[in-house]
Amino acid sequence: MSKVKVAAFSISLDGFGAGPGQELKNPLGVRGLELHSWLFPTETFQKMTGKSGGSVGIDNDFAAQSFENIGAWILGRNMFGPIRGPWQDDSWKGWWGDNPPFHKPVFVLTHHPRPALTMQGGTTFYFVTDGPVVALERAREAAKDKEVRIGGGVSVLRQYLTSNLIDEMHLAISPVLLGEGEHLFNGLDLHKLGFVPYTTVPGDGVLHVIIRRT
Amino acid sequence: MSKVKVAAFSISLDGFGAGPGQELKNPLGVRGLELHSWLFPTETFQKMTGKSGGSVGIDNDFAAQSFENIGAWILGRNMFGPIRGPWQDDSWKGWWGDNPPFHKPVFVLTHHPRPALTMQGGTTFYFVTDGPVVALERAREAAKDKEVRIGGGVSVLRQYLTSNLIDEMHLAISPVLLGEGEHLFNGLDLHKLGFVPYTTVPGDGVLHVIIRRT
Repeated sequence: MSKVKVAAFSISLDGFGAGPGQELKNPLGVRGLELHSWLFPTETFQKMTGKSGGSVGIDNDFAAQSFENIGAWILGRNMFGPIRGPWQDDSWKGWWGDNPPFHKPVFVLTHHPRPALTMQGGTTFYFVTDGPVVALERAREAAKDKEVRIGGGVSVLRQYLTSNLIDEMHLAISPVLLGEGEHLFNGLDLHKLGFVPYTTVPGDGVLHVIIRRT
Repeated sequence: MSKVKVAAFSISLDGFGAGPGQELKNPLGVRGLELHSWLFPTETFQKMTGKSGGSVGIDNDFAAQSFENIGAWILGRNMFGPIRGPWQDDSWKGWWGDNPPFHKPVFVLTHHPRPALTMQGGTTFYFVTDGPVVALERAREAAKDKEVRIGGGVSVLRQYLTSNLIDEMHLAISPVLLGEGEHLFNGLDLHKLGFVPYTTVPGDGVLHVIIRRT
């Protein structure tokens, strides 16, 4: 069965995965962008945004690996867009333009039905209204022998964590103190959930940590 | 005025500074010792326990620096010993034997008065029943032009943090998931308290982070 993983997920030193006050102009919340400072200069990210160049090295290795061997994605509604409540129309097609960086089926968790949306480059967004377990079943089916990556956000990760459905997490701990926002682990007992640290690798100004369920 | 700092304070990846269930046989709580795995092999720690040898390098540098230029210490009652409530007698003299590793005045926060206790090697324990602010005044006076180090534990650190009385913290983030215990930052907003990351330095299997109040 497909491994389910979280990869290249950035959190602050004080454990926040997004800042407070997420909105259209601030999709990661106040100061949320700072969490990803390690990612933006990498060759992988530069390529994603249609540019050339960018840094190679440990941070880029982790960024690149986060896209390898992925057969399907799961995203929360708020990672797909800023719209809350029912879809007003079908004009919002994600933050990423016509050719999103997924290039695979993407299952978007939402309470509001919407037809599937096929983009350029192999990305199709499927809107799943039957909850995270059904979304994972569909993602596993779509991924075949590859892995399912749960892209986030924080509340989606927490749902899958508490349901014991995540096998591995690669976290990038950024030298940032957010103070408030969406905390990834508060109230969760990762030890009881079976996670142990697998490896820690210092990058350029970020600490890469992989934890796995035993 | 003396700088007030926390140094070589170990926390888990999920933010705990001690495990649950602290008691005589388990002064750091269940699995709390794992937080300090980076410290034990260092030359500094080996010397503290009367041994020779030990590792040198980044971890040892941080361990050694944590004792430099300190004029006085503050400890919580539970760091001094496992006894709760009134002192039964004066037989408990700390976890550290006749010659504790402080070699300076140590102000122990407690609700229960007890005469000062002079140990070998320059350590005197003063038991302060007038609260953390008074303890800090006394520690500053004793430290003269040197720094005051707040040794812990977690609840003492949180009290001083919320009172805006800590200038700098050196945290050692250990590759351990405790899942439960005493969380250092839960509910505190380090950003609002004025802290910013000053430096992060990877050690041998631990990440050293210094945060400072601006």
